Amino acid sequence: MKYVIIGGDAAGMSAASAIKKKQPESKVIVMEKGTDVSYGACGMPYKLADTQSSMDELVVVSANTFINKRKIDLRLNNEVIDVDLKGKKVVCKGKGRGKYTESFDKLLIATGASPRRLTVNGAELDGVYYLGNMEDGRALSAQMDKLKGGIVTVVGSSLLGLEIMEALAARGFKVNVIERLQSPLPFLPESFGSRIMDKLSSKNVNTYFGAQLQEIRKTDNNLVVSLKQNQSKQVNLKSDFVVIVAGVEPASKIFLEAGLEAGPAGTIAVDEYLGTSNVDIFAAGDCADAIHGVSGKKVFHPLALRANRAGKFAAYNMMGNKKKVAPIMGTAGAKFFDLALAWTGLSRKSAEEAGFDPVIQEIETSSQAHYMRGAGKINYFLVADSKSKKVLGGGILGPYGTTARQVDTLAAALYHQATLEQCYEYDLLYSPPFGPVWNALHISSAILLKKIKI
Amino acid sequence: MKYVIIGGDAAGMSAASAIKKKQPESKVIVMEKGTDVSYGACGMPYKLADTQSSMDELVVVSANTFINKRKIDLRLNNEVIDVDLKGKKVVCKGKGRGKYTESFDKLLIATGASPRRLTVNGAELDGVYYLGNMEDGRALSAQMDKLKGGIVTVVGSSLLGLEIMEALAARGFKVNVIERLQSPLPFLPESFGSRIMDKLSSKNVNTYFGAQLQEIRKTDNNLVVSLKQNQSKQVNLKSDFVVIVAGVEPASKIFLEAGLEAGPAGTIAVDEYLGTSNVDIFAAGDCADAIHGVSGKKVFHPLALRANRAGKFAAYNMMGNKKKVAPIMGTAGAKFFDLALAWTGLSRKSAEEAGFDPVIQEIETSSQAHYMRGAGKINYFLVADSKSKKVLGGGILGPYGTTARQVDTLAAALYHQATLEQCYEYDLLYSPPFGPVWNALHISSAILLKKIKI
Repeated sequence: MKYVIIGGDAAGMSAASAIKKKQPESKVIVMEKGTDVSYGACGMPYKLADTQSSMDELVVVSANTFINKRKIDLRLNNEVIDVDLKGKKVVCKGKGRGKYTESFDKLLIATGASPRRLTVNGAELDGVYYLGNMEDGRALSAQMDKLKGGIVTVVGSSLLGLEIMEALAARGFKVNVIERLQSPLPFLPESFGSRIMDKLSSKNVNTYFGAQLQEIRKTDNNLVVSLKQNQSKQVNLKSDFVVIVAGVEPASKIFLEAGLEAGPAGTIAVDEYLGTSNVDIFAAGDCADAIHGVSGKKVFHPLALRANRAGKFAAYNMMGNKKKVAPIMGTAGAKFFDLALAWTGLSRKSAEEAGFDPVIQEIETSSQAHYMRGAGKINYFLVADSKSKKVLGGGILGPYGTTARQVDTLAAALYHQATLEQCYEYDLLYSPPFGPVWNALHISSAILLKKIKI
Repeated sequence: MKYVIIGGDAAGMSAASAIKKKQPESKVIVMEKGTDVSYGACGMPYKLADTQSSMDELVVVSANTFINKRKIDLRLNNEVIDVDLKGKKVVCKGKGRGKYTESFDKLLIATGASPRRLTVNGAELDGVYYLGNMEDGRALSAQMDKLKGGIVTVVGSSLLGLEIMEALAARGFKVNVIERLQSPLPFLPESFGSRIMDKLSSKNVNTYFGAQLQEIRKTDNNLVVSLKQNQSKQVNLKSDFVVIVAGVEPASKIFLEAGLEAGPAGTIAVDEYLGTSNVDIFAAGDCADAIHGVSGKKVFHPLALRANRAGKFAAYNMMGNKKKVAPIMGTAGAKFFDLALAWTGLSRKSAEEAGFDPVIQEIETSSQAHYMRGAGKINYFLVADSKSKKVLGGGILGPYGTTARQVDTLAAALYHQATLEQCYEYDLLYSPPFGPVWNALHISSAILLKKIKI
């Protein structure tokens, strides 16, 4: 069998390794358009924050290991520019090779996602950075090393945006943030958004929420970012450089154009076996659908665990060993400054859209027993369906440390379609340095049960 | 209705409050032999560590609130010394009241547990401390304040022992520990025990494991603790004071003598409704049985969440509203020095005893992604049944912070009787500051599945 895999990060290399492990005699070609494979892209903001370490530390397994030990025909700087579904071949452009075609028995598309580029004037100027692959990370890192201070404007306040703001602040930059929405991560309760904004302010980040980016202009010495906030007049922010973090898009264009069926938000449509609308073509990772375990809907879920898992399961299915990949619950999170934030499942709004009759409870609790010196405030929310009493989702925001991992309990509850009564009965850890006797999940389950009964 | 409750801590006060909430007209008498009610006993070691705070901060709800706001007839310094099952009354000894009897319609025994006293010579000398109730805590705290340094010998290396060692070390005492077993917490894998011992050594705690305490003698200036370790000759440890932490025993003696049925380890036998062998008498908390959700066996499980929960559910059942209390999963943990330790479910040994055919996997993983500067080693173990592939228990040991709360995921898995396949499919949080892409539960589930298949 001859397998061609497009993309050499989490999904692609997981798949390539899984195939060679089961079928050492098979030919496995991986086309990677960049210079890096199998790296922890999620770690880039943390490496930016740290002058003592380099992006190269993010590499999980080296290209050499894949080529020499795992016998994978890994081709760096080789980009697939077209695919011929009927002829079962891809058109490639390789460094030193020019344009060539490669046939396949089975194809895996694992091209990931790319930063969404803005179209306002100046969004592609020198000094405007996007953070997608390692080359982007190295470029931004070099810029930070060169300047060693100054003013930076970040456009966007997603999790990645928050992480980048922390990195910039840690390196002594003065940070502005422009966000078109009224608060960061608006699918979370307001209490979460306002606490995040308070944290940004306390770290001297100038926040412009509900602001429209107008343009970016070059002057002699720096850039000027213009924005309009609500109805007020234009604000101009002098910036030594700009980082745009406006979400990501599945890198699926040429495959959809070639005729593969599309999923939501521009993904390549796949089923639970990672199969596309073409029987010999599979797609896995950020470029392809994930199925949400709570709503049952296909979603765009560009996260690393899913990509690794999907790559592995795509490989099983490409080898003819039918295995369904687990649904995602939408678990995500980040640390920024001294706070940790995580959520899973559905927000109230997405629960309504999925046809549930949701109730939500927000509570405040403590990261340690109330009498412990290190105790900090935890914001918690829980969403449940008032008909079935099943838990639908929730999230947590509090001090870095004992907070974020509590979302895993909820992810397990979602997996098992737990009811509020069941969550209330969980025998969760109590010890003073880890929280109060009754966990946030217990408390909010009990309150929601009362709400539903009324 | 007239309710009498014996014991004014977690279980007793939870029950008293729950009854007055539903039946404000009922008479609720709480007999508390000590001077404190409703306090976080588990917090005592942490308060000992901290010169800036007092034991009184551990009080959750004050006696005044119970008496004046919740209209509970709370009697401090009133001890129940006998119970007449047929006559439905208790014999009490009250400060300023002498001996008197009190009748009841329904009785709740919530007397908790007491430190196990040793019987070796000198175990009750002045300068030998046990840590059970707040009076014990205040006495030990006063001693630490008075001496401000010196040598202390701790007898026993349970979780409480470890917490006390940390407190003593934090306050500048030189600490010895004597433990009759070869390692602390020997139901945990060896890798856990040896890491705990390494931590103690690194904190200059002199460890005497596999050691028999011989006696404690008083000299002019201090105490001398004699021990024999394995086959070697006697060691004498000069000690300014001694803390004995030799486990706890249910405070059930007079009730068992009066004829109530006994459970394991001297508890009062109760069913899922917290009812004892006498229809009008209930028991909840550390003095009574808990039912283990994995083994189905009655166990002695002296921990705070269970006590709070059992008190509340005992109240429901005493009021005639039949409600089963949730089983425990055996979840427990502690922080000591910079480490966190937690476990839940069954160890391999207890799984064998419960009739399972267990397999165990120990792994090492990381508290953050491998490339993060703050990453520390995590030890993890998972026990599963090789026939049903169900998870039976597990535990975690690693840096304080992101570690211990991971045991909650396992507690939820146990509640839902999850299989290894299901645990492998959980969509757990990945973000570099919280761990690697694949969680310890994923990795160990995958390895155990392979082990079982072979």
